[in-house]
Amino acid sequence: MTRTTNIRTVRIEWGDCDPAGIIYYPRYFEIVDAATAALFENALGMTKYHFTRHYGFAGFPVVATRARFIKPTRYGDDVRVESTISFGTSSFAVEHKLSLNGEPCCECSEKRVWVGRDPADPSRIRSMPIPTAVREKFGVS
Amino acid sequence: MTRTTNIRTVRIEWGDCDPAGIIYYPRYFEIVDAATAALFENALGMTKYHFTRHYGFAGFPVVATRARFIKPTRYGDDVRVESTISFGTSSFAVEHKLSLNGEPCCECSEKRVWVGRDPADPSRIRSMPIPTAVREKFGVS
Amino acid sequence: MTRTTNIRTVRIEWGDCDPAGIIYYPRYFEIVDAATAALFENALGMTKYHFTRHYGFAGFPVVATRARFIKPTRYGDDVRVESTISFGTSSFAVEHKLSLNGEPCCECSEKRVWVGRDPADPSRIRSMPIPTAVREKFGVS
Amino acid sequence: MTRTTNIRTVRIEWGDCDPAGIIYYPRYFEIVDAATAALFENALGMTKYHFTRHYGFAGFPVVATRARFIKPTRYGDDVRVESTISFGTSSFAVEHKLSLNGEPCCECSEKRVWVGRDPADPSRIRSMPIPTAVREKFGVS
Repeated sequence: MTRTTNIRTVRIEWGDCDPAGIIYYPRYFEIVDAATAALFENALGMTKYHFTRHYGFAGFPVVATRARFIKPTRYGDDVRVESTISFGTSSFAVEHKLSLNGEPCCECSEKRVWVGRDPADPSRIRSMPIPTAVREKFGVS
Repeated sequence: MTRTTNIRTVRIEWGDCDPAGIIYYPRYFEIVDAATAALFENALGMTKYHFTRHYGFAGFPVVATRARFIKPTRYGDDVRVESTISFGTSSFAVEHKLSLNGEPCCECSEKRVWVGRDPADPSRIRSMPIPTAVREKFGVS
Repeated sequence: MTRTTNIRTVRIEWGDCDPAGIIYYPRYFEIVDAATAALFENALGMTKYHFTRHYGFAGFPVVATRARFIKPTRYGDDVRVESTISFGTSSFAVEHKLSLNGEPCCECSEKRVWVGRDPADPSRIRSMPIPTAVREKFGVS
Repeated sequence: MTRTTNIRTVRIEWGDCDPAGIIYYPRYFEIVDAATAALFENALGMTKYHFTRHYGFAGFPVVATRARFIKPTRYGDDVRVESTISFGTSSFAVEHKLSLNGEPCCECSEKRVWVGRDPADPSRIRSMPIPTAVREKFGVS
């Protein structure tokens, strides 16, 4: 069984919206960032705080993202977020599809790299291979 | 003279950064959103609050965006944001180039539509042609 | 039966945290603002988008708030938020108690006013009495 | 000469405002948090990134804050922020007065503690005395 897709529902709040009364679009990136964390949390069975420590890495910063905003959402809307991951060697991609009552409202594709602390300078980060143990938890090899 | 490019400097704050100590990437979209507003503010000679009222429109929501994050920035960094607009009929594109000490840190391209209140339902918005008077202020026809 | 207290659980996300690895304290005000909206949503049986329209008002801006931050929370923490409202004539107060695993992490008291559009200038807001129909939904008179 | 007061101007952006068209109040706490950092930056002559490292501490988290919101501000407003610090032994207080065109819009008082990494557990922080060298830079003893 693979766990490469995760689905969750997110409430759009008053404070997420702008003077036009609709979601302020940078908030969508906060939503999909949390959705990617949730994808790992579900597959690995622990929170991001714990899985970064357990697997000895510093995070998975986004190196590129693109999004289309199809239909505005408003405060009080419960948005469905479906996130699907595909793995590379030291990077991965996630496709997020956001919908409201079955209608697409936003699509976002992101590419992230797996990073650790640079042994030569721990204040810096550098890319690392994604551990096999992590892939296996997602049911991919 | 055209005013299709605007340059400003933005300070990255502690509260813009995440537990990795670098900017939380959704904050870049807040930065470029404000940079697009500043581009119009400089060309039109008034703030967004006033120019939306003066030109009778409801805003310019983003319909698509893409970004590459090239080099992380940290709190205390003063990032240069160079934004260049190109106009369509009822939409426009902005290219944002962010750099720190001459080195690129982020590139972002966005497409926005010019919208007004829908006369049939003022709680809804719909696209409108960009007024000629606005283009002229940018020095384009 | 009164509905003057509401309890919910909120996940602290990576993007809510700062370079110290703990929640960036302005995020607590976003959390309690959403908790106050949820308190009304539960009592009135509709979302803020709908209840402001249904009861004909423009919102309940905060006029004063105070908070104590007792114990830092981190990304992955599921924080319990207990919110209790007490009504005045055209204002109300909410006490929020946030706790993690039974230990208090933040306490926040806020005072809000009930506002509507000023008939003389709809771009401005002014305070209004809280409708009796609203109080009754909370089980208070 | 003392440097216990700092004054700066902050632009309220579209993305700082909510569907009522006025600043979303948690943004005021982001503004005053950055103002406190600026107060130290001006006195110490380096950014927060550098002064935390130079003086060997982990930050100055807020333990208590209170604010009054007197007059709403809008996107495009340039708000004056006057911040005054008073020192304790391992804590300090800052009073922030925000005004627009000479009229007060927000007042905020905060208490912060000076913290370092706990030697027994570097993932935890604990309070420390504020270094004399820091006080001297502010012109107080």
